[in-house]
Amino acid sequence: MIQAPARGFPTSEFQTRTATAQRLMAQAGLSALLLTAEPEVRYYTGFLTRFWESPTRPWFVIVPASGTPIAVIPSIGAHLMRQTWVADIRTWQAPDYVDDGIGLLADALREVVPVGGAFGMADQMESHARMPRADLQRLQTLLGDRTLAGDAQITRRLRMIKSTNEVAKIEHAAGIADRAFDRVDEFARAGAPLSQVFRSFQAMCLMEGADWVPYLAGGADAGGYGDVISPASDDPLQTGDVLMLDTGLVWDGYFCDFDRNFSIGPAAMAVQTAHDRLIDATHAAFEIAKPGAVISDLFHAMNAVTNPDGAVQDAGRLGHGLGMQLTEWPSIIAADHTPLEAGMVLTLEPCVDLGNGKIMVHEENIVIGANGATYLSTPQDSSIRTL
Amino acid sequence: MIQAPARGFPTSEFQTRTATAQRLMAQAGLSALLLTAEPEVRYYTGFLTRFWESPTRPWFVIVPASGTPIAVIPSIGAHLMRQTWVADIRTWQAPDYVDDGIGLLADALREVVPVGGAFGMADQMESHARMPRADLQRLQTLLGDRTLAGDAQITRRLRMIKSTNEVAKIEHAAGIADRAFDRVDEFARAGAPLSQVFRSFQAMCLMEGADWVPYLAGGADAGGYGDVISPASDDPLQTGDVLMLDTGLVWDGYFCDFDRNFSIGPAAMAVQTAHDRLIDATHAAFEIAKPGAVISDLFHAMNAVTNPDGAVQDAGRLGHGLGMQLTEWPSIIAADHTPLEAGMVLTLEPCVDLGNGKIMVHEENIVIGANGATYLSTPQDSSIRTL
Repeated sequence: MIQAPARGFPTSEFQTRTATAQRLMAQAGLSALLLTAEPEVRYYTGFLTRFWESPTRPWFVIVPASGTPIAVIPSIGAHLMRQTWVADIRTWQAPDYVDDGIGLLADALREVVPVGGAFGMADQMESHARMPRADLQRLQTLLGDRTLAGDAQITRRLRMIKSTNEVAKIEHAAGIADRAFDRVDEFARAGAPLSQVFRSFQAMCLMEGADWVPYLAGGADAGGYGDVISPASDDPLQTGDVLMLDTGLVWDGYFCDFDRNFSIGPAAMAVQTAHDRLIDATHAAFEIAKPGAVISDLFHAMNAVTNPDGAVQDAGRLGHGLGMQLTEWPSIIAADHTPLEAGMVLTLEPCVDLGNGKIMVHEENIVIGANGATYLSTPQDSSIRTL
Repeated sequence: MIQAPARGFPTSEFQTRTATAQRLMAQAGLSALLLTAEPEVRYYTGFLTRFWESPTRPWFVIVPASGTPIAVIPSIGAHLMRQTWVADIRTWQAPDYVDDGIGLLADALREVVPVGGAFGMADQMESHARMPRADLQRLQTLLGDRTLAGDAQITRRLRMIKSTNEVAKIEHAAGIADRAFDRVDEFARAGAPLSQVFRSFQAMCLMEGADWVPYLAGGADAGGYGDVISPASDDPLQTGDVLMLDTGLVWDGYFCDFDRNFSIGPAAMAVQTAHDRLIDATHAAFEIAKPGAVISDLFHAMNAVTNPDGAVQDAGRLGHGLGMQLTEWPSIIAADHTPLEAGMVLTLEPCVDLGNGKIMVHEENIVIGANGATYLSTPQDSSIRTL
């Protein structure tokens, strides 16, 4: 059995996150942050539950300009929230068809946001307000003498740089997926329905230690696949297919996200050449992934290998941040000039167009260090694996 | 091997959903519906992918007052969307840091919403706008001569009544969970860490036919558990524990959602009595669950058994709708007076308070028919299962 890191975080880590956010809030002129989405709430509180799968109840956490977070949550979550470091927990019996927590939330915000002051909610790309639109409008009406602003991307900026404890969880998740990928030959072969391969792979991820498997996509088709987001069909694998499995499994609330390609039977020359190029592209980005570079450098390093004529893949990006969510900031695109910093966890995800509507993608997970990157997934050989 | 229903839906079913929505839109004075959330988009299009796990890209579908839906989506989804019945697919290369689809979306809305007209987005309980708040504001500015309104709960009302095809998928999902629950004795026993039990149960759900397992919660503690939303700890099961597993597994995009209780070793009298009462409460609601009753009748029928003194459980509701999401409208609470109709799929989920902060819950899935309800999960005996 592989030794797992400790679950959870020391309270000091939540205190540090909160204090850092409060420093940035002071600079941005915000008296509070209002959090509504799962990763935001969990980042400051440690509140970890799969109950977010239910869309019924909203959850609110306030990070005030000083002091500790205030949870304004449905009573069904009080027992679990009391196990976190959050001391100020206010509940209502949700769902409440008359007032589903908005009055309680407004009262709490009034305590920490002065009249004329502002509170911030995430409003940029990759964020959304996880609450009914009508309730958000009602909150603004109730707090008409305070301003609902953006959050100055404070939580995004904090989350982009992972702590040692966070990296350890992602690395552990990646190790689980590595071991599951090593056992794909136990169930994937010509004749096996793709849907059954997907089921067996997810079960293998669990048996190797995943807490749950929120994401599995992939494809299988002759000499490449048409897209990378489809669910599995019941069609059987056939000799000559390229099978791709892309998993985002979770350990203690942190994701890995990478894929592996397999050839069913001997690989056609075009498939082997494409795989070779994908591996070269990944290494090209890995080599320059260190402080001093910017995200677009990684994009160009990969695209120069996969598209020497300068074309850009239609799917857009060639990787992204990774952590509490399957995909996080930044996006590895030509327009992203975010400087690389130690503690960033990224996926490198080059794509090759094989023509005839077929593509192949490859993906690895890395963490940026002061002097260079380290692979969190086990980097693959040029030779595509054969099943 | 159990015979599974056909995957997907005939195009006629999407045409019917669209036409019904359009009739209701005419009544509500809406020229279009704008859909941003996964189940809304899937309900009208059939677009099924786990890629929504990534928060990066927004997805938009417009249901115009007449004609067929218009998809305004990231190019990475075009290949999969082309496999649905949607013919009008407009794409942009997301993420785009300058304009992430909003200009394209505004253009499409201008085509189907006249100047002075209104388009609707879900704004009530259980809904949220799955797009950045700043982008929604920008859309409103671009369409300043059109009104962004609520959606008159049109999609909610349609989704609440399931078609025969939808019920068949939920029933198949429930059968998978039934078989997995029947095999819990293969891996759950005194000494087994709860986290390992959770992993094994999810793997069992997959082996029995689940496409994926988006939800598993539960608890295990002496003589009851403290809440029903916690993730698993690594603590081993002990004799005297009550183990509860509550799963929402998916088959072809449809959920089941029910739980089972198990006693580790012989059950204490209080535990057996509580279980007995939960089963009685479930049957009490089942017996009256037919057209002519309203949702609050089910609440009172269950609560009269579990809380003969008239008290109301803190967690709020005693069941809910079920289908494309783990939880859907309506909520089984005293304030919900929705009339029962044939085709509604519900969970019945009574709760007993054992004192000392311990509770027990039980849950079954039913479908309402013209003359009464039918269990989709296999109704349990009064005797709690012993491991």
